[in-house]
Parts: sequence; structure tokens; C-alpha cells
Amino acid sequence: MTRPLFLIGFMAAGKSTVGRAAAISLGRRFVDLDDEIAKDLGEPPAALVARDEPAFRRAEAAALARVIQDSTKYDLVIATGGGAAAHPGNLERMREAGVVIALTVSLDEARRRAASGGPRPNLARADVDELYARRELVYRRAHAGVATDGIARDEVVARVIAVARAADRLGDRALGAAYLALGDRTYAVTVGDDPLDGALVARAFGERRPTKLAIITDDNVGRHHGAAAKRALEHAGLDVAHTATIAAGEASKSLAEYARLHDELVGAGLDRGSAIVGLGGGVVGDLAGFVASTFMRGIPVVHWPTTLVAMTDSAIGGKTGVDLAAGKNLVGTFWQPRLVACHLPVLATLPARERRAAFGELWKYALLDGEDTWAATEALATWAAQPTEGPAPRELEGVIRRAATYKAWIVGRDERELRGERALLNLGHTVGHAIESAAGGRLVHGEAIALGLVASCRVSHALGLTDDTLEPRVTAALRATGLDADLDPHLTPEVLARVGVDKKRAGKTLRFVAIRTLGACELVDMSVADLPSFLRPTSAL
Amino acid sequence: MTRPLFLIGFMAAGKSTVGRAAAISLGRRFVDLDDEIAKDLGEPPAALVARDEPAFRRAEAAALARVIQDSTKYDLVIATGGGAAAHPGNLERMREAGVVIALTVSLDEARRRAASGGPRPNLARADVDELYARRELVYRRAHAGVATDGIARDEVVARVIAVARAADRLGDRALGAAYLALGDRTYAVTVGDDPLDGALVARAFGERRPTKLAIITDDNVGRHHGAAAKRALEHAGLDVAHTATIAAGEASKSLAEYARLHDELVGAGLDRGSAIVGLGGGVVGDLAGFVASTFMRGIPVVHWPTTLVAMTDSAIGGKTGVDLAAGKNLVGTFWQPRLVACHLPVLATLPARERRAAFGELWKYALLDGEDTWAATEALATWAAQPTEGPAPRELEGVIRRAATYKAWIVGRDERELRGERALLNLGHTVGHAIESAAGGRLVHGEAIALGLVASCRVSHALGLTDDTLEPRVTAALRATGLDADLDPHLTPEVLARVGVDKKRAGKTLRFVAIRTLGACELVDMSVADLPSFLRPTSAL
Repeated sequence: MTRPLFLIGFMAAGKSTVGRAAAISLGRRFVDLDDEIAKDLGEPPAALVARDEPAFRRAEAAALARVIQDSTKYDLVIATGGGAAAHPGNLERMREAGVVIALTVSLDEARRRAASGGPRPNLARADVDELYARRELVYRRAHAGVATDGIARDEVVARVIAVARAADRLGDRALGAAYLALGDRTYAVTVGDDPLDGALVARAFGERRPTKLAIITDDNVGRHHGAAAKRALEHAGLDVAHTATIAAGEASKSLAEYARLHDELVGAGLDRGSAIVGLGGGVVGDLAGFVASTFMRGIPVVHWPTTLVAMTDSAIGGKTGVDLAAGKNLVGTFWQPRLVACHLPVLATLPARERRAAFGELWKYALLDGEDTWAATEALATWAAQPTEGPAPRELEGVIRRAATYKAWIVGRDERELRGERALLNLGHTVGHAIESAAGGRLVHGEAIALGLVASCRVSHALGLTDDTLEPRVTAALRATGLDADLDPHLTPEVLARVGVDKKRAGKTLRFVAIRTLGACELVDMSVADLPSFLRPTSAL
Repeated sequence: MTRPLFLIGFMAAGKSTVGRAAAISLGRRFVDLDDEIAKDLGEPPAALVARDEPAFRRAEAAALARVIQDSTKYDLVIATGGGAAAHPGNLERMREAGVVIALTVSLDEARRRAASGGPRPNLARADVDELYARRELVYRRAHAGVATDGIARDEVVARVIAVARAADRLGDRALGAAYLALGDRTYAVTVGDDPLDGALVARAFGERRPTKLAIITDDNVGRHHGAAAKRALEHAGLDVAHTATIAAGEASKSLAEYARLHDELVGAGLDRGSAIVGLGGGVVGDLAGFVASTFMRGIPVVHWPTTLVAMTDSAIGGKTGVDLAAGKNLVGTFWQPRLVACHLPVLATLPARERRAAFGELWKYALLDGEDTWAATEALATWAAQPTEGPAPRELEGVIRRAATYKAWIVGRDERELRGERALLNLGHTVGHAIESAAGGRLVHGEAIALGLVASCRVSHALGLTDDTLEPRVTAALRATGLDADLDPHLTPEVLARVGVDKKRAGKTLRFVAIRTLGACELVDMSVADLPSFLRPTSAL
């Protein structure tokens, strides 16, 4: 049997209609969980919810258990009620049994749809805003999120089907993955404690197996993992025609290296049917992705991230690029990979400084995602701060999966940063990038982002969006994982000037990601000219 | 009133259902021409077609005239019968009154749809293959072609609406344009005898007006038209922040120039909301498009082609790129422009050699498009072959429009060359590129393509696909427009080796565009090893 496909989401997201259409296309049976409950109860679920919600939730859990049991006999698509995933244990059971896709809908749109489709009791309630916000945190734990606002029903169905197919291709690895639901560019981020797995890469290509592969890596990573990577790919029957090695470090993110790599790939006989595997951290990933996006006008890329930052951030979402003298990432493309496969054992050789720096991005996700992720990140502080390299604790897998799932969720709904949502991921980056750039190699990316998060706390406070407990809480967390949180020495005139050429600037206004509290960040437009005074230490105001 | 939208296309292409849905979205009335005819006749059209087709065609023409008259009072979407556009004069009347979109469907798919939707008499006829081929030549004269095979109904409707909106934005220029129906990347190719028009560029951006513009041009074109271009854009209220000038010639299509242009644009203060105008021939267009596709991960580009080759070929279709030492266009992207605006007066300064060379591409389109376009191209031979530069004859506008319409038709249905259809445009290019590359600047692109067309004749003959009259006909035509058609001196070992690294090679097989006869070209897979013997002169075999 194929794993069951569960659709979760808020009322009026379209779970039943989309599920029914997807089931037809996939050749599966469709089950509406509310219909199952109604059969069990002999009355419509809405009536029992109104009279005795706990009893309804028990009936729902029982129906869910039965459907999961049925899924060992039939191929199923299952639509659930809006609250099913929120009831303790249900979401975990669905995630363990099959692939869970959240259909998302804005509250305004849900209200519009409900108004035109007959009474939906809960949407009339006064506390629905709060309910909606709570539910969103739950839905975000799905394997994939598919937006439905302003998107034709057929297209929503097509995206759901694409996720189901991507999961089918992955076989046993399907359930531990997060998926970016991007239609014909849908792909998975897998996280596991196994070594580099060539068969997983081969599966991700499906029937379009590449004629040849080139590995792009750097000299450090290549020394540790290059031979194993080549072996793993060849063991899976893939033809590794070439390994291209760049010097480790940000200086390799140049148009000169970009040009040299193209020459190497042509020399190695790669053609339009070939593909690239990027084996390394953010620099390798950005460069390998950019080269893949333009080599013979674009060939596929798979990312094998070897740093914690790459696993949780830079390898996911398709942003590629190189730097110019004037700033970072000023040249690049959007080019989604075919797969991002995170294998924890490669982190054992990660230098202690890189590991610490990664917590800059991990704290960013904790601020975006809320208290649960914050606590899970805090639990890793001892490992983060230890002075030498060493194997990752078991708990890391969950934190990587949370970060990857959050990023997949955002990018799946705003791939090209057009709707503002993806811009949330720039939390800490506007000032962080400028600090990194001005430091000229003295800071690594995550260290600069850590300082950028402190900057975000200050600006958010100056704008009156948050209270004065946020900055101390963030700096304490950063320091517990061994990161420098002392922003002031970095606020040089050069840094402030560099924020002005950041590509996120539109005209003379800056779009800044501000923090209200953990799990509640938002975009604000502010004047570039206000930045210096907003960044002054709170005590100095 | 808005101009009426006409849907034409083969039986079962979906004209009525798509038209009805598009009318609702656009807020217009829907008219089914066959229903109008039925009202006039008091009987179903099918009955009259079977009994007296000429009488039916007269009734159809009358109904069409009445509907066009009505379109001055109401905003209309009009679906026509499969044969309406083929009847003499009808298509011209529709094109003059409004925007004509052809819904295309493969014959196999049309038969499948017809079989499941009740009897459709014509599809059962023995000569339907021939009817289909004849009709396709007619439908191709629409303003835009929208494919329907394997594409969800909602998506087809969305593409139709996008063409209607693009046409609305263009105002008076809408009807002389060809449209590439690419969903949210839909754009127009306009052809006119007016000077460079900044207002047209501004209209193409719609409500997303760029913060700043940079013009990219070369030193020759800049000298003739740079000042006028800047003035025209500024006159339309656009902010031209910078003009970047490259050296004329293929040598500028390098990663070095590409890098330098990015630095210049950052220096000029361009940001993510800015756009680029490419003013020049193929080299400028390929480079400006490539820079636009990667500057801050992509900003819009508008092409103002100043050569005949650029107007009819290189500026249309979104292929961008630069060369490597190993071959042409090995690095690049697919990046569709916002508009391609062809203004004939700029051709008056086109050097005689460039003008002649352009006929390499124009003969290619004539071979692809059939006898009508061949005859229209022959009529330009005197102008083509004249020894000095000079203003273009009136007839050129029609030939450019035919070539642009053909290319728009192909690209609109196979943007990324995935379905093979777009690869037809490589007719003459496989060998032509190798000759151009080996000539190291002694030949311009079109001159090499002309020789590549002769190569295509020979390979097609060696494969037994065409008779021995094709090559003499093609060489005579090339020579009448002043082009060298003497292939043999160019068939050096170096050229044959270069064909082997052409990016259209997949493995050791070459995908070659072969010619059966005018208007009937097709892709064939052949071994790279067979090429030398296939290219030997026919008389030597």
C-alpha cells in the first residue's frame, strides 16, 4: 500500500473538495473524517461539537485510528476537520502513518468562503482570530503547506499531487522529510542520522536520471567527505564525471570562481542532461546552485549540506548567488534544488566555531517559530558551546527538522519573496549582512546574524513593538550557545552605510523584520535615515 | 469599449468552455458564433454544413460581421467554429477588430475529447489529418497561441486572460503585436514604423513602474540611437539612471563583460525594483537579458532590438547567455522580457552586411513556416542585396511580423524546449553555430546560419527525408539576398569537432532539425559520428 495522504487545515481551506479531486487523480479512495464520525455517532458532528466537544474529540480520535488501520488495506486520501490536527496526539499519529499536507487559507479568505457556503459556526465566534493563530502553529507541523488564497482549485490539487508523488519517490525516507510544495519544482528536505546516501539522490531524480554528475565542494569538506560522496553516488549507479573543488570561504563566492566552474564542467563533458551535487556549506551551495541555474541555461542540482547553517537555512529555498565588491549576493538566481539531504554524521567534523555560528540562524528560527522551538534550541546549548568538534546529539535532528519545516512552509507559499511572507526569513539579516560584509572575513555568516538579531530587538523596541525584556532574553540565549552578542562595537559608520546598499532596500525605505514576541514577527517599512538612532543601546535612550 | 477577444482553434480545443469562463473573469459578454448562426438559420449549423457548406460559410461570415459590429457596443469574448478562421477574409477581419487567440490541441487529444463528448462528424473523416495540418497553418496567424494538451482548464483560461490583459495595456498597439502566452510572464512583440517609443515601454510595465532604468547598448548603436532612446524613455516619465555601453561584437558576450555590467548597475544605484532596457542587436540582447535575470536575483528587461536578426529571432523567447572559450551560449538563463518593441526606422542605419546576414534567420523562418512566408521573403531580395544601408521597404513589416508570430507561437507552447517543439527553431543552428564559432569573428551570426541551412538540406537529403531539389532552391534563395551559400570550404575538421560540444548534444546522439519540405520540418536523432559523411556534397555521394 502507498502511504495515506492526510489533508489538514482551517475551515474553508478546501480540504474535502481538494482531497476528492486529488484522490481521483491519484487513483485512491477518498475518506472525509467528519463523514466517518457522523456514521459512528448517527448525528452530524457539528451538533455534538456544540453539545459536548470532548466527546466529539474522542469520537474523532477513534475514527482517525480506524482510518489509519484501513490505510494498510486501501490507498487513501483523507480530509480531516479543522480541529483534528490540533487535538493532542492526532497530528503525530498522522505524521507517522503517512504524508500530511496543510492547505492554508488567510482568515479573511476563510470568512469570505464560509459566508458564501452556508453557516460555519466557529467563524462567527469572537475569539476566532486567536483560534486561527493557534491553529496555524499546529498546521505548520505538516510535511508540506499549500497556499489556497487566490489560487485556482485545479492548481491547488496539482500541488497536492506533486507532494504525494515526491514522497512516493523517496520511499522509506518520505515521512521524516519536509516538502516545498512548488508544483513541478516540488522537492523534499530529508534529515537523518545515516551517512551520505547516493540511492536517495538517485530516487529524487525519478525517471529523469542525469547523464553525468559533477560534485562541487570545497577543499576542507572535500578532504573529509569527497571520496565518500563520490563512492555513495557511484554505488547508486550514478556517473560522477568530475569533482570541482573551490577554496573554502566566502571569497570563493565570486564571479571569477563562477566562471572557472563553468569551464571545468564543460571540460568534464557535462551536457544539458547532466546534474550537479553541491557538497558543502553555504558558500558551496550558493555557488553550486548558481552554476547549475545557468550552465547550458539550467541543469538540476542536489544539495548535500555539510554545515548546520546550510542544513537549516541556505540550502533550502532556491536562492543562489555570488558577491560583488559592493555587497553580498548581488548577483544570483532563484533555482530550486531537486533534493536537500541532511545527514547528521557529516556534522561531526564541523569545526567548533562553525557549529556555534550556526546557532545564529537557529535562534532566528526559534524567534520566528515560537516558544517550543526556542526551548528545543536551548536544550542544545551544551553541545553548541563545547570547545571542540564532536558528534551531534540526537535532539539536533528534531531542531533541524523544525527549522527546515518552517523554511519549507514559508518558501512554499512565497517562493520569490513577492508576498512579503518570505521576507520574514530576513530576520536579523539586514544589519547582519552589513556587519558580515564590513568584517571582511573576520566573522562568519551565523556570527553576524546573531548580532543582527540583537539589532532586530533594538529596532523593534525603538518602534514600540516589543518590551525591554526581549533583548536581554535574546542576548542571554546567544551567549549560552557561545555567540558574541555585543552589538555596539560593530555599529561603525561603514556598517550603517552598507545597510543602505542592501538589496532589500526599495528606494530610501527599508523593509525591516521586527519582533513582537517569540513566534510573532512582522515586516515594517522604516526610513534608512532612522536606523542609526534606532540601533543605539536601549539604556542610552 | 475594449477590443473583442476571439477564440479560434480546431474542434474540441475548448473554445466555448474556455471562452465562457474567460468572459466571466473579464466581466464581458460571451458569444458563441455557432449559436448565432443557428439562430439566423433556425437549424443547427452541423446540418447545413453537411448539406451545403458554401451556404454555411456565407451565414458564418454574416454572423461574424454582425458580432464585430456588436463589439462596438459591448465588451465581448467570441468563440468561433473550427473552420471560421480558415474561410478567406474571416481571420483578417477578426485581427483588425480585436485580439485573436488560437487554442491549440494535438489531433490525438482532439480525437480523445471528441470521442468522450458525443459525435463530431469531421473527426471521423478519412482526410482529417490533412485538414488538421492545413488548419494549423491558419491558426498560427492568431495574435497568440495557447496550448491545451495536458493543461488544466483553469490554467488555459488564466493564460487567455493574461493575453487579453497584456493587449489592454498596450492600447493602440495591441492589434499589430504578437503575444507569447506564458501566464504571468505573458508579453507582446510589437512591430511598427514609428521611432523608439518610451510610452509603449511604460505601458508594458503596467502598474509596476520601475524605480530606475538602465539602458544597455553597444558603442555603434549607442552613437546612432542612444540619445534618442534616453529621451524617449524620459519623455514617458521613466527615470533613466544610467546607460551602460559595451563594445560592439560577439567578443562582448563574455563573463567578464557580464561581471562589469553588474558592477556598473550597482554603482548607478539600481535596486530590486529597477529594470533594464536592452538597445541593440543579438549580443546586447543576450547580455542585457542575462544581466537582468541575475541582477539582485532578477529584474525586468525590455528589448529594443536594432537589428533585423534581433527583431525576428534573438530578442524573442527569453534565451539569454554569454559564450565560453569552449562554445557559444554555454552560460545563460531563460528570462522572458516584459516587451519586445521593434521600430523599423532604426534599421535605416543597419550596415549592409548585417542586413544581408539577417536573411539567414529570415530564410530559416520561411523554411519552417511554408510557401507564403518564403514568397514574402523573396520579395525583399533587392533590398537585402543592395550594397549600402538604407530605409526598409514597407513589406518588411509584414515579414518581421510573420517571423515574430511564428516564434511567439512556438515559444508560447514550449518555453523551455522540453517538448521538442522549440527545438525546431534550431534549424540550421547546430552546424551554423560551429561554423560561426570556428570562424572566430570572420562571420556574423546570420551568415553562419545561412550556411547551416545548407547543411540542414544535405543532412535531410542524406537521411532520405527530402529530394535533391531542396538544396538548390535554398542556395539560390540565399544567394539572391547576397548571402554566401558555399558550405564546403567551411566544413573543416575544427567545425566538425565543435558540433560535438554543442549543448544540443545529449550523450553521443545529436538532435538535428531536418527539412522535408517548406513548412514541414522535424526533429531527428542522429549519431554525431554520421555527421561528416552526411555533410558531403550531394554530387559527391
